[in-house]
Amino acid sequence: MQIKMIAAVVALVMAGSVSAAVRDEPIQPLPQPKVTSQAKADLGKKLFFDPRLSRSGFISCNSCHNLSMGGTDNLKTSIGHNWQEGPINSPTVLNSSLSVAQFWDGRAADLKQQAGGPVANPKEMASSHDLAVQVLQSIPGYVAEFKAVYGSDKVDIDKVTDAIAEFENTLVTPDSRFDLWLKGDDKALSAGELAGYKLFKDSGCVACHNGPAAGGTSFQKMGLVEAYTTTNTAEGRVGVTGKDADRFNFKVPTLRNVELTYPYFHDGQAETLEQAVELMGRLQLGRKFTADEVGSIVSFLKTLTGKQPQFGLPLLPPSVNATPRPEPFAKK
Amino acid sequence: MQIKMIAAVVALVMAGSVSAAVRDEPIQPLPQPKVTSQAKADLGKKLFFDPRLSRSGFISCNSCHNLSMGGTDNLKTSIGHNWQEGPINSPTVLNSSLSVAQFWDGRAADLKQQAGGPVANPKEMASSHDLAVQVLQSIPGYVAEFKAVYGSDKVDIDKVTDAIAEFENTLVTPDSRFDLWLKGDDKALSAGELAGYKLFKDSGCVACHNGPAAGGTSFQKMGLVEAYTTTNTAEGRVGVTGKDADRFNFKVPTLRNVELTYPYFHDGQAETLEQAVELMGRLQLGRKFTADEVGSIVSFLKTLTGKQPQFGLPLLPPSVNATPRPEPFAKK
Repeated sequence: MQIKMIAAVVALVMAGSVSAAVRDEPIQPLPQPKVTSQAKADLGKKLFFDPRLSRSGFISCNSCHNLSMGGTDNLKTSIGHNWQEGPINSPTVLNSSLSVAQFWDGRAADLKQQAGGPVANPKEMASSHDLAVQVLQSIPGYVAEFKAVYGSDKVDIDKVTDAIAEFENTLVTPDSRFDLWLKGDDKALSAGELAGYKLFKDSGCVACHNGPAAGGTSFQKMGLVEAYTTTNTAEGRVGVTGKDADRFNFKVPTLRNVELTYPYFHDGQAETLEQAVELMGRLQLGRKFTADEVGSIVSFLKTLTGKQPQFGLPLLPPSVNATPRPEPFAKK
Repeated sequence: MQIKMIAAVVALVMAGSVSAAVRDEPIQPLPQPKVTSQAKADLGKKLFFDPRLSRSGFISCNSCHNLSMGGTDNLKTSIGHNWQEGPINSPTVLNSSLSVAQFWDGRAADLKQQAGGPVANPKEMASSHDLAVQVLQSIPGYVAEFKAVYGSDKVDIDKVTDAIAEFENTLVTPDSRFDLWLKGDDKALSAGELAGYKLFKDSGCVACHNGPAAGGTSFQKMGLVEAYTTTNTAEGRVGVTGKDADRFNFKVPTLRNVELTYPYFHDGQAETLEQAVELMGRLQLGRKFTADEVGSIVSFLKTLTGKQPQFGLPLLPPSVNATPRPEPFAKK
């Protein structure tokens, strides 16, 4: 009987389904994506890709959180309505469900609250919640899906953001080589990559970049040991808390898929991982990494690229005659 | 022996693979999508979705030929680099391989020639062929694919546009209800839809909207019987041929998926199918359709919505340190 139980446990461990096998490290493996309601996630995916949530009919969530490119736009700061230059770098939507809060300054408690922001921001999608809902409510294909998911054919912004958040909850990227190593596969990392991780850990990077997302768990001052020089005017967390101590405090970004989410920092000033590592060492840790050390840490960081969400491009239900038309060139 | 042959033919006809079963009509069923090289089409799909082909890093082929929305942007005229107002309505990329030529004025002979246009057009993607190639050549993930497809790791614009065209060749939308009817399924259309088709045919619409794509086979004057009033300055085919007789001649657009490709005409002035049908009747045929007649034709047009291309959202290979960075806000 005991032997049978042990055999069963061993089998489970080998199948990777028992956490006891996971190494005791400050970064933990990402979970597999969870879907509570497939129908809701499918609706949310359509909304995520639908540019009709913007006033121009041109910008969707996916424009700046492009799921073909690591859930970002790979721009320093984003392009908004009428080609306005955005104030801040678009954080990746991948694994964002694991963050302590949303936006660089954490002004949204969760993904649902976040999703309503850009839609109505005049510098981003430049629509309003009322107009976005009016557009969706006019489209029979959407109304039927809202009815199927929420039991009511009345569209409102609460349901819209709830569905988008449900889709975003699925955007987890497990099974990176680092995760395989965390789960006990000694061959998943090269000796050099492992040395890079050791240096990353021993230097103190994990003080902030920890947890399953290797970040996203706290707010920290940008320029802790040495001040950060930037022309970007974002002041971070102080705008939310009003506390002077929170000036230049930003949410620590996840390092998951960091190879894909260039450029780096809230202002996108670091174009390469090498620049980012060098600067972080100096500004946050007071440590001047050699070029070899930087290269070593970068080689570790590249092992954090996980399995990207793969799904069919959604087909959007067409507008009808009654649907309010986009106004990309309207003078305000 | 003869009986066996007849049985074989009957079996083929029932399987829908013999054209003898198709009704003799001015519009023919769309073929199933053909893929000559899956690897080339996959590469072309990535390029089609890659905003790094634009100077801003924000605009891809899919931005204006959005495959979530009938292969169009559903805007009157498109948004280009720096939010420039485009001169003309984006035609759908769906079934465009069946067109006699590309662009409204037919200035490109085929899809391959077309694909190079927007990339280097300062009002559209605002890059150059040189820069686009330099970007792709710097990305190891792309170079490996070009090598696998073309046997050479030297990227050039010829290969880039060839791969995009190969992907676009797959964007055919067969099996609309009208096609099922064409192939002999009497129940595929309602009596009202069939009456709409009869009116469409008897009124002379098929003189231009014919062939498998119900259009795309010829250039015709916009405003044949009655002049077309528009503030749009496009003059159509005359810009290509230099012949005054070609002024305001435009390629007849396909009516396939026309329910999805609003707004209509080269200037996008017709917001609804009803407006488009009423105007076409009056301007091209000198015929004033009643509201009932318009409704009847529209009900037929909606049976032309076919099976949309369905595929996984492509994952794009990341840029590396040497990749030229996008310049969305560069002053020129």
